[in-house]
Amino acid sequence: MMVSKNFIDFDFSYQEAKVVFWGLPFDGTSSFRPGSRFAPPEVRKISYSLESYSPYSDKRISDCMVHDAGDLELPVGNTQKVLQFIERKASDFLTDNKKMISCGGEHLVTLPLVKSYLSKYDDLILIQFDAHTDLREESLGERYTHGTVIRRIAELISPARIYQFGIRSGEQDEFEFGYRQTNFHPFGLSDFSSAIKQIPPNAAIYVTLDLDILDPAFCPGTGTPEPGGITFTELLNAVLLLRSHNIVGIDVVELAPDYDSSGISSVAAAKLIRELVMLL
Amino acid sequence: MMVSKNFIDFDFSYQEAKVVFWGLPFDGTSSFRPGSRFAPPEVRKISYSLESYSPYSDKRISDCMVHDAGDLELPVGNTQKVLQFIERKASDFLTDNKKMISCGGEHLVTLPLVKSYLSKYDDLILIQFDAHTDLREESLGERYTHGTVIRRIAELISPARIYQFGIRSGEQDEFEFGYRQTNFHPFGLSDFSSAIKQIPPNAAIYVTLDLDILDPAFCPGTGTPEPGGITFTELLNAVLLLRSHNIVGIDVVELAPDYDSSGISSVAAAKLIRELVMLL
Amino acid sequence: MMVSKNFIDFDFSYQEAKVVFWGLPFDGTSSFRPGSRFAPPEVRKISYSLESYSPYSDKRISDCMVHDAGDLELPVGNTQKVLQFIERKASDFLTDNKKMISCGGEHLVTLPLVKSYLSKYDDLILIQFDAHTDLREESLGERYTHGTVIRRIAELISPARIYQFGIRSGEQDEFEFGYRQTNFHPFGLSDFSSAIKQIPPNAAIYVTLDLDILDPAFCPGTGTPEPGGITFTELLNAVLLLRSHNIVGIDVVELAPDYDSSGISSVAAAKLIRELVMLL
Amino acid sequence: MMVSKNFIDFDFSYQEAKVVFWGLPFDGTSSFRPGSRFAPPEVRKISYSLESYSPYSDKRISDCMVHDAGDLELPVGNTQKVLQFIERKASDFLTDNKKMISCGGEHLVTLPLVKSYLSKYDDLILIQFDAHTDLREESLGERYTHGTVIRRIAELISPARIYQFGIRSGEQDEFEFGYRQTNFHPFGLSDFSSAIKQIPPNAAIYVTLDLDILDPAFCPGTGTPEPGGITFTELLNAVLLLRSHNIVGIDVVELAPDYDSSGISSVAAAKLIRELVMLL
Amino acid sequence: MMVSKNFIDFDFSYQEAKVVFWGLPFDGTSSFRPGSRFAPPEVRKISYSLESYSPYSDKRISDCMVHDAGDLELPVGNTQKVLQFIERKASDFLTDNKKMISCGGEHLVTLPLVKSYLSKYDDLILIQFDAHTDLREESLGERYTHGTVIRRIAELISPARIYQFGIRSGEQDEFEFGYRQTNFHPFGLSDFSSAIKQIPPNAAIYVTLDLDILDPAFCPGTGTPEPGGITFTELLNAVLLLRSHNIVGIDVVELAPDYDSSGISSVAAAKLIRELVMLL
Amino acid sequence: MMVSKNFIDFDFSYQEAKVVFWGLPFDGTSSFRPGSRFAPPEVRKISYSLESYSPYSDKRISDCMVHDAGDLELPVGNTQKVLQFIERKASDFLTDNKKMISCGGEHLVTLPLVKSYLSKYDDLILIQFDAHTDLREESLGERYTHGTVIRRIAELISPARIYQFGIRSGEQDEFEFGYRQTNFHPFGLSDFSSAIKQIPPNAAIYVTLDLDILDPAFCPGTGTPEPGGITFTELLNAVLLLRSHNIVGIDVVELAPDYDSSGISSVAAAKLIRELVMLL
Repeated sequence: MMVSKNFIDFDFSYQEAKVVFWGLPFDGTSSFRPGSRFAPPEVRKISYSLESYSPYSDKRISDCMVHDAGDLELPVGNTQKVLQFIERKASDFLTDNKKMISCGGEHLVTLPLVKSYLSKYDDLILIQFDAHTDLREESLGERYTHGTVIRRIAELISPARIYQFGIRSGEQDEFEFGYRQTNFHPFGLSDFSSAIKQIPPNAAIYVTLDLDILDPAFCPGTGTPEPGGITFTELLNAVLLLRSHNIVGIDVVELAPDYDSSGISSVAAAKLIRELVMLL
Repeated sequence: MMVSKNFIDFDFSYQEAKVVFWGLPFDGTSSFRPGSRFAPPEVRKISYSLESYSPYSDKRISDCMVHDAGDLELPVGNTQKVLQFIERKASDFLTDNKKMISCGGEHLVTLPLVKSYLSKYDDLILIQFDAHTDLREESLGERYTHGTVIRRIAELISPARIYQFGIRSGEQDEFEFGYRQTNFHPFGLSDFSSAIKQIPPNAAIYVTLDLDILDPAFCPGTGTPEPGGITFTELLNAVLLLRSHNIVGIDVVELAPDYDSSGISSVAAAKLIRELVMLL
Repeated sequence: MMVSKNFIDFDFSYQEAKVVFWGLPFDGTSSFRPGSRFAPPEVRKISYSLESYSPYSDKRISDCMVHDAGDLELPVGNTQKVLQFIERKASDFLTDNKKMISCGGEHLVTLPLVKSYLSKYDDLILIQFDAHTDLREESLGERYTHGTVIRRIAELISPARIYQFGIRSGEQDEFEFGYRQTNFHPFGLSDFSSAIKQIPPNAAIYVTLDLDILDPAFCPGTGTPEPGGITFTELLNAVLLLRSHNIVGIDVVELAPDYDSSGISSVAAAKLIRELVMLL
Repeated sequence: MMVSKNFIDFDFSYQEAKVVFWGLPFDGTSSFRPGSRFAPPEVRKISYSLESYSPYSDKRISDCMVHDAGDLELPVGNTQKVLQFIERKASDFLTDNKKMISCGGEHLVTLPLVKSYLSKYDDLILIQFDAHTDLREESLGERYTHGTVIRRIAELISPARIYQFGIRSGEQDEFEFGYRQTNFHPFGLSDFSSAIKQIPPNAAIYVTLDLDILDPAFCPGTGTPEPGGITFTELLNAVLLLRSHNIVGIDVVELAPDYDSSGISSVAAAKLIRELVMLL
Repeated sequence: MMVSKNFIDFDFSYQEAKVVFWGLPFDGTSSFRPGSRFAPPEVRKISYSLESYSPYSDKRISDCMVHDAGDLELPVGNTQKVLQFIERKASDFLTDNKKMISCGGEHLVTLPLVKSYLSKYDDLILIQFDAHTDLREESLGERYTHGTVIRRIAELISPARIYQFGIRSGEQDEFEFGYRQTNFHPFGLSDFSSAIKQIPPNAAIYVTLDLDILDPAFCPGTGTPEPGGITFTELLNAVLLLRSHNIVGIDVVELAPDYDSSGISSVAAAKLIRELVMLL
Repeated sequence: MMVSKNFIDFDFSYQEAKVVFWGLPFDGTSSFRPGSRFAPPEVRKISYSLESYSPYSDKRISDCMVHDAGDLELPVGNTQKVLQFIERKASDFLTDNKKMISCGGEHLVTLPLVKSYLSKYDDLILIQFDAHTDLREESLGERYTHGTVIRRIAELISPARIYQFGIRSGEQDEFEFGYRQTNFHPFGLSDFSSAIKQIPPNAAIYVTLDLDILDPAFCPGTGTPEPGGITFTELLNAVLLLRSHNIVGIDVVELAPDYDSSGISSVAAAKLIRELVMLL
């Protein structure tokens, strides 16, 4: 009789849940517009505009047995400590045999999440949906920012295990690194289907979805909107293709709701979370 | 020398007009964001950013002989009385041999409009453009809401006479009802052309256009934006295809201008009204 | 370590709590701009921009032992059923010896709240902060709207027990009714201090705060902003004066966050709730 | 039964009306933010959030017998022709013995309005509420702009007949001109009451109200908001003081609704129009 | 160590630069929403969200040797003088052998820019990207407005040398003029590639890009958004095709940043400027 | 003839200038809404809506001989390095005998600014205008945040030399520290005049102005708006009172322009900068 404060139908207790949804409200290294810290509560609120049934997957959210753990409390202004807090808590969830679907915050949060997964899945494959390479070696001397995060991950796992889709922005060096070293598929999703067919069905895959892969028309509410992106439907179709793979972890990052006066970015994020959680 | 307060070029008197345009500022059963009550004045205001000539139809608005009757005054908080007021006034227009192009308000206003048309056209066919099935049996015990309106109409006319296009959201039951009983074409307009070819050219058709069929990128200003919709051009092309049919009534619903800071949703609605009125 | 989803520091369990905070997301009879249904989640979210310590009262929120019960789920489009749902649940809270601080929604929610209190406190006094009299006999035939709510209450308790402050809008009849029958103090709070001194310190008082008593400069995010109101500081000082009285119930209504792009109305509401709850 | 498209209760026909309300959607010389062209329709729309009864004046709008003539159609980019169009139409209204309450548009529209009045009232007194002197001799060589309008009027009537209130911005020359030549009362309304007492009760007064006299907190939606202004209540009280004088014409200018996301500026303008029209 | 105030990497001195970037903040003849005067500073600010490397052209902005000359100071309300100021300054730049990429302001600024180029390139070809024909003979008697600008240019150069793409709005007369006289390609870019192949590679081409050619989903922040336009990617691809031609001048007009709350229109403009400048 | 890109009339070269204006776009420790990084360019842009003449001080901006040095480039996510960068550059300015008026950014930037001044003025007095004490010992373990900045300064200079005005928010400990140790004047400016009279006229004073001292009605665009503040006029009058003192440095912080859709906060900041710079 009372409305839940969770994401719609993520109402399982921690014990009974298979999947944990949580928010990581960190935007401390955003290079242009900060504000992704406000994504998790906005996504929860707007999730109630959606149905809990997916006609794409013919499934209900409640079939996924998700617990909404709330948002992690994080210290401001101390990037290293934030990364430690996230990694520690994520490891706890994995120890308890929960899969995670995490809601940023900015893209740097993917680093501690992937680190925690690597201790469990040492052959992890990363699929990155993104407008930006995030392959920078450093940014004004800083090695831990939302523009260097995939480069840092490429130091933990073989770059060839990193699949990058939708990329359309970066420095010349980053594009060169991508073309040479990662599984690099810039400028859209035209070869998504063939690319993922190369991944063995049982390989453990972590999916990181930076919402700015979408054209700003479909997701204006993000920190660094980059014109020339894909449509929501193209992204949704790619997500649905992943049903035949073994997805073990997911994050959705870079939603900045205060630049989204009509709420269409938040509802896009919420709908993607609904479809993504059905992959776990 | 003075600017008209009507929708652009809807300046015919009631007597001389063939078509009546009016506003139905009701949003009392909106399940998520209300505010479609403010659509009619906004659509009038923004219509002056358009040309009165359509290069698609090579016609002028003034060729359509439309009277702008203003907006119906409606009591707040009493859904049943609102439905009666609308049906009564709509019947008056039909008695005077006026066709109607009605501007919501929310989708429930279609129920009394269709009822009034049924007393004149008993074989009426309904074409629904929408993101949502609106086929719910009830909503928290309520049988008259913007989520049940097509189900109520399906009790008045054979479900097979209801053509649904663009649907991408609903409960499992609604989708099952659609697949089994209505002329159901979910997830876009790919088979629109072939589907409407089955309708006899002289059959009387009522068109109800819920603007949320558009992807939120093209129409953010709506009560329940649902990502994954069609483009404006796709919708416009479908509308233009209807020129070979016998359209007798039209409504355009669910524009919520207060969630449309740039006005692109209102101008989309106004342009669609310009093209739709040329069908009457 | 996880951020609470409750209003800041309203983290007591129902059992241990003395006070219940809950949301009543109803705006079905709003005559101008709806949207107050979105107030409760917004107030919770923005409460974290405040300190939990009040330097005005030299108290902490946690001293008040409040439980955040979430928001009541309400059927759309059926005003009578909504009023029943609210009254029933409010009576449950009172039966369990909880005081309530309720967050609207629109002003009509005060009717079932006061009704529930009357079954416990038959000599209840009502203090109304408001820009509008809300004393209308009816509105387009409707007797239950946000413009008639105080008139309906004046049929349940003696009008002389109703103290109205800040009123600056209404029909001529309403002002006449106010001047003759209620304890009527229009156009500001200049005689607030002397007026409340007439109330015995032990008399049970219910406070209903319509945020539109504030000038729109201080609270733009409301359904019917009425220029010429009081400042936040004037209202806060009035609230603080009530510390010497016996407040048994409180509601805060008519916050419409979607008309508040900077969030100043929501934070005003949240700060007033912080100060008001310290009266209970 | 249909909602009027006029400003609330300005529903008299031209013949029966004593007063004409019209819009002058011109903003061609705005030096900072244009957009006052959109003021008239917005003011009409938001007027329905007000009561038609004024508790300040204990009068109804309908007592004033006002006709809403709509908005004048104006050529873009040709300032001189715009001024001619306005003066010509205004003279027609005066010839028909109608008083005018005109809604800008920007402040330059006051020039042709005052010119038309001067042909009828050669001893006209001007009361200007404004943040800016508008006494510039020219602006980048242009003599007809919203920053020179009062200087141009000071060439038509004796500067001593121009009462300026609330001024807090201008060039050094403008302030010197004001102090020496006009009836100059900068920085607020503290001496408003004593100043207007010097005007004979039967002297014909034209009131021009530039809404930016209000502090931007009370009227953000204006072309050149100037912090440090007066409150709405202070302005309202000044307006009410004018009841003992012979007001023959009024304009309200510089509302720019697209910079007023919450609508509080438009509702302030509409309420001031309601109170001002009661002076005519 | 200090952030530049120029458009990103347009940091060459006037002497060393090959190309001049400047702003023309004029919107005096905008027929619907003004505000394009604010485009140049907004485009500069948001350019820092982009990379200075283009992965489409595999080039750096600094390779183009651009000087940011700032914005021209213009008198308000005097269209003719504005046109003279622009033409005079543009001629200075051409005399100094600088190519120009100019940022409006509204579309009328293209007239003096093209005039200045004609004194240097008498066989100039114009490529216009636009939603509107801009071929009006006059507008309420005015011959110099943003709706007549291409008609005026068609009086200076042969209409057959004017290539119009993306047009979807205009009066019947304008469309007839286009079909008969200009190189007219309405309703999209489907024949862009074949059309420009007819232009000799060494012919001097001036490109005028009215951003409203984009669908409002991709560029809401414009004066007269016209639904049914092209996507950003379609426009970008057309721009990239021009690399094999001899582009001598460029303008980008009709960005109205105050109708672009999320900034996606400004970033689209900035990214197009980055790609366009690589053509010079 | 070209519009300057500087703050209005801050057009002196570094050599000839007495005062340096610069931006410090850092918001890395903002506890609620970030975004103050965007303040400097917005303040420059909106400064052109102001006159360069102050009627309050009867002075022109150009009398102050100010150089606009632009904004300091800062690394994201590394608070300590940011503080070093600021202190080093500020010391350079002081070495060159320039006074500074600095534009945040968030309040933590005051720490390195004051440090640099202390090396020159060892008896420095700090006047703080603020809604918050900023006296926290730490925040989730962090000692360098916008909520601890004054506490850190109180470790560098005697707390008694810190004058705090307008404070209305903080933890209980902070208020206790203020009451006992600093020159603490909470809840407004009522004793501002008497308090500053105690400061010797020749004592070197650094003024730090956190714009959230203003009530959110007057400055909605700030990171942590706190209702119950002072008006713009009250703050302006306090600033003007400082003319009789020896002000050696100034900062204006915590403007967050993206929460200020109407621009009134930015124009308030710009006007205060105009008046403050006249104190140097």
